[in-house]
Amino acid sequence: MLRLATPRYERFSQASSFEVVYGGGEANVAISLANYGLDAAFVSRLPANDIGQAARMNLRKYGVDTSHIVWGGDRLGIYFLETGAVGRGSKVVYDRAHSALSDIQPGMLDWDQVLEGAKWFHWTGITPAVSAGAAATCLEGIQAANAKGITVSCDLNYRKKLWKWGKQPQEVMEEMVAGCEVILGNEEDAEKVFGIQPEGVDVTKGEVEAEAYESVCKQLMKRFPRAKKAIITLRGSFSANHNSWSGVLWDGQQLLRAPTYQITHIVDRVGGGDSFMGGLIYGLLTYSADDQQALNFAVAASCLKHTIHGDFNLVTVQEVEKLMSGDASGRVSR
Amino acid sequence: MLRLATPRYERFSQASSFEVVYGGGEANVAISLANYGLDAAFVSRLPANDIGQAARMNLRKYGVDTSHIVWGGDRLGIYFLETGAVGRGSKVVYDRAHSALSDIQPGMLDWDQVLEGAKWFHWTGITPAVSAGAAATCLEGIQAANAKGITVSCDLNYRKKLWKWGKQPQEVMEEMVAGCEVILGNEEDAEKVFGIQPEGVDVTKGEVEAEAYESVCKQLMKRFPRAKKAIITLRGSFSANHNSWSGVLWDGQQLLRAPTYQITHIVDRVGGGDSFMGGLIYGLLTYSADDQQALNFAVAASCLKHTIHGDFNLVTVQEVEKLMSGDASGRVSR
Amino acid sequence: MLRLATPRYERFSQASSFEVVYGGGEANVAISLANYGLDAAFVSRLPANDIGQAARMNLRKYGVDTSHIVWGGDRLGIYFLETGAVGRGSKVVYDRAHSALSDIQPGMLDWDQVLEGAKWFHWTGITPAVSAGAAATCLEGIQAANAKGITVSCDLNYRKKLWKWGKQPQEVMEEMVAGCEVILGNEEDAEKVFGIQPEGVDVTKGEVEAEAYESVCKQLMKRFPRAKKAIITLRGSFSANHNSWSGVLWDGQQLLRAPTYQITHIVDRVGGGDSFMGGLIYGLLTYSADDQQALNFAVAASCLKHTIHGDFNLVTVQEVEKLMSGDASGRVSR
Amino acid sequence: MLRLATPRYERFSQASSFEVVYGGGEANVAISLANYGLDAAFVSRLPANDIGQAARMNLRKYGVDTSHIVWGGDRLGIYFLETGAVGRGSKVVYDRAHSALSDIQPGMLDWDQVLEGAKWFHWTGITPAVSAGAAATCLEGIQAANAKGITVSCDLNYRKKLWKWGKQPQEVMEEMVAGCEVILGNEEDAEKVFGIQPEGVDVTKGEVEAEAYESVCKQLMKRFPRAKKAIITLRGSFSANHNSWSGVLWDGQQLLRAPTYQITHIVDRVGGGDSFMGGLIYGLLTYSADDQQALNFAVAASCLKHTIHGDFNLVTVQEVEKLMSGDASGRVSR
Amino acid sequence: MLRLATPRYERFSQASSFEVVYGGGEANVAISLANYGLDAAFVSRLPANDIGQAARMNLRKYGVDTSHIVWGGDRLGIYFLETGAVGRGSKVVYDRAHSALSDIQPGMLDWDQVLEGAKWFHWTGITPAVSAGAAATCLEGIQAANAKGITVSCDLNYRKKLWKWGKQPQEVMEEMVAGCEVILGNEEDAEKVFGIQPEGVDVTKGEVEAEAYESVCKQLMKRFPRAKKAIITLRGSFSANHNSWSGVLWDGQQLLRAPTYQITHIVDRVGGGDSFMGGLIYGLLTYSADDQQALNFAVAASCLKHTIHGDFNLVTVQEVEKLMSGDASGRVSR
Amino acid sequence: MLRLATPRYERFSQASSFEVVYGGGEANVAISLANYGLDAAFVSRLPANDIGQAARMNLRKYGVDTSHIVWGGDRLGIYFLETGAVGRGSKVVYDRAHSALSDIQPGMLDWDQVLEGAKWFHWTGITPAVSAGAAATCLEGIQAANAKGITVSCDLNYRKKLWKWGKQPQEVMEEMVAGCEVILGNEEDAEKVFGIQPEGVDVTKGEVEAEAYESVCKQLMKRFPRAKKAIITLRGSFSANHNSWSGVLWDGQQLLRAPTYQITHIVDRVGGGDSFMGGLIYGLLTYSADDQQALNFAVAASCLKHTIHGDFNLVTVQEVEKLMSGDASGRVSR
Repeated sequence: MLRLATPRYERFSQASSFEVVYGGGEANVAISLANYGLDAAFVSRLPANDIGQAARMNLRKYGVDTSHIVWGGDRLGIYFLETGAVGRGSKVVYDRAHSALSDIQPGMLDWDQVLEGAKWFHWTGITPAVSAGAAATCLEGIQAANAKGITVSCDLNYRKKLWKWGKQPQEVMEEMVAGCEVILGNEEDAEKVFGIQPEGVDVTKGEVEAEAYESVCKQLMKRFPRAKKAIITLRGSFSANHNSWSGVLWDGQQLLRAPTYQITHIVDRVGGGDSFMGGLIYGLLTYSADDQQALNFAVAASCLKHTIHGDFNLVTVQEVEKLMSGDASGRVSR
Repeated sequence: MLRLATPRYERFSQASSFEVVYGGGEANVAISLANYGLDAAFVSRLPANDIGQAARMNLRKYGVDTSHIVWGGDRLGIYFLETGAVGRGSKVVYDRAHSALSDIQPGMLDWDQVLEGAKWFHWTGITPAVSAGAAATCLEGIQAANAKGITVSCDLNYRKKLWKWGKQPQEVMEEMVAGCEVILGNEEDAEKVFGIQPEGVDVTKGEVEAEAYESVCKQLMKRFPRAKKAIITLRGSFSANHNSWSGVLWDGQQLLRAPTYQITHIVDRVGGGDSFMGGLIYGLLTYSADDQQALNFAVAASCLKHTIHGDFNLVTVQEVEKLMSGDASGRVSR
Repeated sequence: MLRLATPRYERFSQASSFEVVYGGGEANVAISLANYGLDAAFVSRLPANDIGQAARMNLRKYGVDTSHIVWGGDRLGIYFLETGAVGRGSKVVYDRAHSALSDIQPGMLDWDQVLEGAKWFHWTGITPAVSAGAAATCLEGIQAANAKGITVSCDLNYRKKLWKWGKQPQEVMEEMVAGCEVILGNEEDAEKVFGIQPEGVDVTKGEVEAEAYESVCKQLMKRFPRAKKAIITLRGSFSANHNSWSGVLWDGQQLLRAPTYQITHIVDRVGGGDSFMGGLIYGLLTYSADDQQALNFAVAASCLKHTIHGDFNLVTVQEVEKLMSGDASGRVSR
Repeated sequence: MLRLATPRYERFSQASSFEVVYGGGEANVAISLANYGLDAAFVSRLPANDIGQAARMNLRKYGVDTSHIVWGGDRLGIYFLETGAVGRGSKVVYDRAHSALSDIQPGMLDWDQVLEGAKWFHWTGITPAVSAGAAATCLEGIQAANAKGITVSCDLNYRKKLWKWGKQPQEVMEEMVAGCEVILGNEEDAEKVFGIQPEGVDVTKGEVEAEAYESVCKQLMKRFPRAKKAIITLRGSFSANHNSWSGVLWDGQQLLRAPTYQITHIVDRVGGGDSFMGGLIYGLLTYSADDQQALNFAVAASCLKHTIHGDFNLVTVQEVEKLMSGDASGRVSR
Repeated sequence: MLRLATPRYERFSQASSFEVVYGGGEANVAISLANYGLDAAFVSRLPANDIGQAARMNLRKYGVDTSHIVWGGDRLGIYFLETGAVGRGSKVVYDRAHSALSDIQPGMLDWDQVLEGAKWFHWTGITPAVSAGAAATCLEGIQAANAKGITVSCDLNYRKKLWKWGKQPQEVMEEMVAGCEVILGNEEDAEKVFGIQPEGVDVTKGEVEAEAYESVCKQLMKRFPRAKKAIITLRGSFSANHNSWSGVLWDGQQLLRAPTYQITHIVDRVGGGDSFMGGLIYGLLTYSADDQQALNFAVAASCLKHTIHGDFNLVTVQEVEKLMSGDASGRVSR
Repeated sequence: MLRLATPRYERFSQASSFEVVYGGGEANVAISLANYGLDAAFVSRLPANDIGQAARMNLRKYGVDTSHIVWGGDRLGIYFLETGAVGRGSKVVYDRAHSALSDIQPGMLDWDQVLEGAKWFHWTGITPAVSAGAAATCLEGIQAANAKGITVSCDLNYRKKLWKWGKQPQEVMEEMVAGCEVILGNEEDAEKVFGIQPEGVDVTKGEVEAEAYESVCKQLMKRFPRAKKAIITLRGSFSANHNSWSGVLWDGQQLLRAPTYQITHIVDRVGGGDSFMGGLIYGLLTYSADDQQALNFAVAASCLKHTIHGDFNLVTVQEVEKLMSGDASGRVSR
C-alpha cells in the first residue's frame, strides 16, 4: 500500500508535497521479521505498473522475499496521512477501494508453493475487510497452512471504514480466526469484531488496566479453541504525541503482563500494532519456551516503532533487547 | 484531479516524496481564464473528503468559482507523473478509475443554475472517456448550453488508456462534438477519435507542417456543421526538453497560422493543450473580430505554460502579450 | 502580512530557506471564521505587486472574501520568525515599516460598501500601532459599524516594537475601544495599553490564576461602557514547547472560566490569540445565549491552533467540538 | 541585501518557501575578489538585527572583511526573485525602500579609516539610486579615494525602479562618475544614465555587435576625462535559459574584444555584471600590463557566474583560467 | 560506495545538505543487468556498519543479489559530487582511501562459491587502482572465472587520482586484462593505462571521430589475444549540459559503429560508462549473434542513463528498445 | 569535521539526503567564544580540498579566526549522525580514520605564532585519541602555552571507539592533563580515562547526584596539581528527547553547584559538552572573581545548545543571561 503523508504536521490543504512510504499490515510484519534476521515473504497482489513495482522494491530493500506476489489489477491501495499533534489526532483518508488486492480471487495464489517450507503464516483483519475475494483468498491461505501444520496468527485489526463489501466482520472473520493459533487485538478489536467486551475501560483516557483484558482473552480462546495464545496491545492516549504502550498475553492459564512504556515524543505511531506482531512472532520463535520474553520483546520492539518514520519498524534485535533490558535512556551510541 | 509528481526528474522507484498539485483538463482552462481576469467556474463532482477539499481550495486560490461543484463519491482521481528528460519521455500512470467524477449521473448537476449568465461552456474529451455517467452528464451540459445559446467548445483530448467503460470514443463523442461551435484537437486527436487523418506527418519527429492540417479541419467542420472554428495545436517533439509549439485555426474559409515557438528548456509540459484552449477562449472573447490575434494569444499563452510548474498556466495577459509582441528574450524584469 | 520562518528550529543565521506563509491579526480571524463556514471578508490595503497578490490568493484559498482589499503602497509588511525550543523562545523580527497598510489614509476604504450586510466587525490593536493613517482608517470603520448597529470587537494586542509613529497606545486606543461591544486581551495587554493591572501574576512562570483577571475585566468594562463582554486569554509558559492555555469571560455579572489545556508539544504558537478570537466570534454568533459554550469553543479552537503550522487556524467546527467534548486523546481518526 | 527566490522556477504565488541568499552589487564584487585571494572589504550600513547579522556572516564566510560595516537603520533591503525559463523572463520585485543603507548620511562612515591601505575603491549606480544620503555618502567615498590616489571604479548599473528620491540619475551620477578611473556599463546603462547611445542594436534580440559600442566608450571617456578605461558587457538574450555573453574594453586608443560565450543552460544570471567587475578588477590588478587578459578573465569569470546559484560568483582563479584557456567542455574533474 | 552530491548545481561551500545515493562501477553494472531482468550479483567488501548496510539495501532494492558481499573493514568509500553546468564541469572529490574494499586481501572471497553457475564476470579498472589487495583479489576472480570458462569483461576506467598504492596501472592491469574476452574503454583509457593512442582527437572539443579509434581497438586486441571484442565509448563534450554520445565495437574483423545521440539536457552523467557496459553485456547475452544490436542497445541504454539521477541506470529493456528504434522524441507516455 | 545527519529522525537506511554541518570539539568551543564576542582561533589541520575549505568557511562565517589552520592530508574526518527519539538513542558512526588531523606531526604547527597574544588554550581528549601524531602535536601546544603562561583547559571527552592507535588513554593523557589549569569532564570521563570513580550513580537512569562528584574532582586535582578548577557536567537521561542538565565546579575548596535544567524537547544534543566549555571559558574570563556565575553561565549556555541544530552553539550572551536570570519560559520575543 502506498502511504502519502503530509510533512511536518501539515494539514492536507497546506501540503505542497507528500512523503512517500510503502506499508500495510502484513508487509509491516514481514519487514520486522526480515530486520530481525528471519526469512520472511510477503504475499499479495500488486498492480503491474510503476507504483506497484516501487512498493515491491521497497520491501525487497529490507530483505523481504517478494517472489510470491502476483501481478494484476488496476491500482495500488493508497492511504493519505496527516500527522496530528497534542489534541489534534492524526487523520487517515483511505483510498484503497478497487485496489489490486481487492480484486483478488481464490485460486490466484498457489498456496502450496507459497507456504512451501514456511513455519508461520500471518494475516490481519484488514485483508478480509477489503473485499469478498480478498477474504476468500485469505481463508484459502489459512486453510492451506492448517493443513500443512503451519502456525497461523492474526491481528484482528478492525477498520470500520473498510468493511463496505456487504458482509459484517463477524460473519467473515469467525471462520478465519478459527484457524489461528495466535490471536492479537487491541483494546477495541475484540468488541468491534466479535462483540467481546472488556470492562471499565475508557480508551480515550490515559492508561488502561491490563487486568480488565483477561476476560476478553478468555472469551476469545473459548470461542476459538485452536488458539493457544491471545494477546492484547494496550495503548493509553494522553495526546497525539504522548502514548503509553504495553500488552498482555494470555496463554490459557495465566495472564502475562509486559512493562508499560511512556512514549513521550512520538515520531510516527502508524504500524505500531504490526510492529508488535512482528516482535511477538520473532519472540515466540526465538525465546521458544518463554512467552514472557516474547511478550516483552514485542512491546519493546513496538515501542521503538513509534520513533521510526514510516510504517516499517526498522530496528534490530540488539536495539530491542537493549530497551528490554531496561535502558530507555536514549543516550547517544558512539 | 490530484497530480503526484516525482521531484527533479526522479523515477517512480527513487522518489521519497511526490510534489502535489491539482489539475485536470477543464480545471486548467478555468484557471487560465481566471488569471486573465474573466469570471470562470469549474463544474465537477469531488469526493467529500480532505483531498477533494484541497483540490477545491487550490482552484479557489486562483479565483475560480467552485460553488457549483457537487460533493460525493469515493475518491479524487489521481495521476502519477514522472518528468522525463532528453530521450526519456515523461511517464503518466493514471489512477482515476472509480473517481467521484466517474460515478456522476445525469441529473446530479443543475445545469440551469450552473449555466445561469454564462457566455461559454467548455468540455474536454477526457470527461466522456471516464464513464458512461460522465459522458451522459457532459452531454446534458452541452445540450443545456445549446438551448441557452451559450457558445460551446471542446478539446478532443484523446486518451487511449481511459476509454475502458465499454463504448468507443467515436460512438460517444459524435453527438457531443455536434453541439460545439469551437473544436480543438492536437495532431493525433482527430484521427484517434473520428478517424480523420492528416497527411505526411510523423509526430515523433521534429516540427510538423501546418498546412497538412487544413484538410483535417475541413473534414471536422463538414462533419460537425455547428462548428465555426476548428483549431489544431502543433507540437514538434525534438526531445523531452525541447519542443516546438504552434497552432492553426480554420475559420471555414482560411487557415490562420500562428508563429512557431522553440521551447528549448521545458519546465513542465503537462497542461499545454489546456492552456492553449484557455488562451483561445480569452482571445476569441476579447479580440472579438480578430481570430488571428486570438490564435496568437493562445499559442503564446501555452508556450509560457511550458515554463510553469504544475498543470495550471499561471500567467497574466500582460505576460502573454509581451511574448506575442515578439519579445522572447527572457530578460529579467526588474 | 508575509511571514518568513526558518525551518526546523534553525536560527536566522543558519537558514538557507524560509518557509512562506501569509497571516496577520485580522486575516487570521477571518480565516478561522471562513473555516467554520461563516462568510468572512478581509479588508486592508495591499501592494499591487506579486507578493501582495500571493497574500490575497492565500486568503481566497480558504474562502475569505478579498474583494474589499484596496491596492497600492510600496510593500507588504513582513515578519521573520525563528521558532524556539525549550528555554529559547521564538524570535520575531518585524519588518513592517512603510507597508501598504501603514500608508493607508482615511477615505481610501468605502466603509459603507465594506460593511454592507455585515453582522460583525473585528479589528486588532496592531492596526493602530502601525501608523496614524491606519489608526484613523480603523476608527472610521469602527464608527461606521457603530452607526450601522454592527457588533464591534477588538483584540488589544499590544506590540511594543510597533508603536513608533508618535503617539502612545492609550491616546489612540481609548476612542477606538470605546466603540467595541467585545474586548479581548491577554494577560499583559490591558496593563500595557491602559495601565490596568491584574494582581499577583508572574507571566514568565507556569500557569496563571484566572481569578486575578476578574478585576481587570471589571475595570475595562467600567472604562468602556459600550462593552458587553471582556475576555482574557490565559497562557502559562512552561517552555517554548509546552504552554498551558485557557481564558475567562466577564459578561458584566459573572466570570466564566474555560477548562485549561496543557499544550505539551507546540507546533506553532503564533496566531494563538487570533484563533481564540475567531473561535469566540463563531461561538457568540452560534451558541447565541450560551457564553460559556462560546468561551469553551474559543479556548479549544485556539488550543488546536498550536498544532497547526502557520498563522492560520485550519480546523473545522467538528474538530473543535470533539476537543470541547473532552476528547484530547489525539487518537488516529481513520 | 536579502534575496528571496522561489525554488524550481515557481511563480511567487506557488512558493511555499523562498531560498535565502545574500547579495547586492558591491558585496558581489567583494566576494569575487576574496575568492580570487585578494583582500576585500565590504562597506555599507546594515540594520542591527538578526537579518543584518546573517547578511554579514555570509560575507565573512567567503572571507570578505566586514569590520567597516556600520550598524543601524530599520531594515535590510530585500528583493524577491522568480527565476524564469524560455520566453518567461525572471522577475524581480524590489523591496528595498527604507533600508538601513537608504537612511545613511554623510559622516556615518569614517572614510579615512575605511580606505586605509586600500588600492581600489568600487561602487555601483545602485547606491546613489537608493537615496540622497546614500548618494552623498558614496560621493564622500569617491572623493576620499581620489584624494588618497586610490583607483576608483564604478558600474553604472541603471535601475529604473529605484530612482525615486527626487533627482534624475544624470544629475547625481555626473559628479560621481567624474571621480572614476574605470567605468563599466551594460548595453543600456550609458543611454539611460547619460543619454549616450550605441547604434543599431536591439537588446531584446540575439547577439549584439561589439563594435557598436566603441562610440559609446569614446563618448564616456570624453565626458569623464579621469577615466582610463571604459568597459561594456554584452549580453545577447536568446531566452531566459540561453544568453550569449561577452564584453569590450576601450583603453582610450583601441577597442579590445573578448571572446563570446554561449551560456546555453543558465543556472542563475543575477549578479552577472558584478562578477564581470570582480573579474575585471582582479585582472587589471594581476595581469597588470595586459588589459586583454584582464578583459578575458572578466568575461570568463562572469560566464561561470551564470552557472552558480545565488548572487555570489563562487569560482577560483584556476577555474576561470581553465575556461579562458579555451576549455569550455564542462568535463568532470576527478 | 556512498555518493554525496550537492543539490541543484550548488558548490560544495554552499550546500546545507547532500543528496545520498549509492553506486560504484561494478555495482552500477549489476543494477543495469537486474533492471533488464537478468540475475546479477554484486561482490565486494563492505564495512559492517549502518552505512555499509544502507549501501547493500539499495542494491537489494533493485534486485541485485548481495549475498556474496563480505563484511569488514573501516569504512565505505565516499565520493563527493558537485554537478556542473555549461562551462563549469562537475567536480568529484574522492574520499575512498582506507575503504573496506581497499583492505581486502586475496582469500577473503570464496570465488568458487561466488562464481557458481555464473555466465559472466565483470570488473573495472577502479578496483585494482584502490590497493594491492583489491588488485590481487580481483585477479583471483578473473583467474577463477577463466578456469570455469566464464566470460570475463572489463572496463579500463582509468582514474588518475586513485592510483596511489605504489604501482603503475600498466604493471597491474596487464595481467588482469589478459584474462578478458571483452574490453571496454573510453577515448582516454587505452592511452592512460597502456599508452595506446588514438589519432587526431581533442577530447575537450565537440564530437569525436569514431574511425580514429579503430587503431586503438586493434592494438588492444593484439596485445590481449584472449579478447574477442574491444569497445570504445565516444563522448563529445560541448558543455557540462550537452554531450554527444556513441560507441564503436571492434570484433576482430570490422568496426561496428552505433548512432550518435545528442544529449542536450544532461541530468546526471556519472555512471555513463557503467550503464554502457551493463547494456552491452545484456545485448551480447540477448541478441547473441548480433553485435550491432548489442552495441546499439549499449549506446541507447547509456544515453538514457544521462537522464537519470544517481549512479544507477534505472531503465527497462522496453525503454531502451524504444530509443534504439529511433524514437528520441521524449513524448509523454500515458 | 564534517557531520552528516539523517533528517527528521530517519534511520540511515531511509535517508535520501544528509544534512551537512561542520563541527568537532575544539571548533565548537571556538564558535561559542566568537559568538560571545571574544577573539577565538581554531587551530587544526584540514585537507586542501573543497570539503576542507567548506569546513573552514563555516567557522569563518561565525567569526572564528582560521588563519592558523595548516593544510594537507587526505581527508576531512566525518561522522554520521542518526537522531534518536524516546527510547531509541541517537547513533553516531565515526568515519574519521586517516583524517588530515590524524596525520599531523609535531612541528607542523608553529605554536609560537599560533599562541602569540593568546590568553587561553583549550584542547579536548578527542584529539590525542585520534593518532600518536595528533597527541604529540597537542602536547606541544600545551607545553608551549605553559611556557608562555597561557591558561590551558581540557575536556577529557573519552570516546572509546576512537582510541585505536596503540596506546591507552591514561598513558597519553596523563602528561597532557598535567599541563592544564582547568579540567572538564562528564560523569564517565574521569573513570574511563583515569579510573577515577564517582559513587552510587547510574548514568543510564534519570538525574544524578551532584555531590557524588565531589570526590572525583578532588581526586583529579590531587593528581594534577597545576589544576585550579575541576568541573563535571551532569546529564540525566530520561529519554532521547528529555534530559536534565547541570554541572558542578570544584575550586579546590568548595563545590559550586549550578541549577538543574529540564530539557524536555531536545533539538540536538551533540556538542552539549563543548558548549558548556565555551560558556565556562567565557564566564571565567568575564565574571572574573565569580566562579558561581561562570558555572551558571556554562550550564545555561549549554542548556540552550540543546535547542540548536548542529554542533555549534549559536546563542548570544544576552540569551544566556536571560536564561541564567531564571526566565526559562520560552516566550516569543517580539
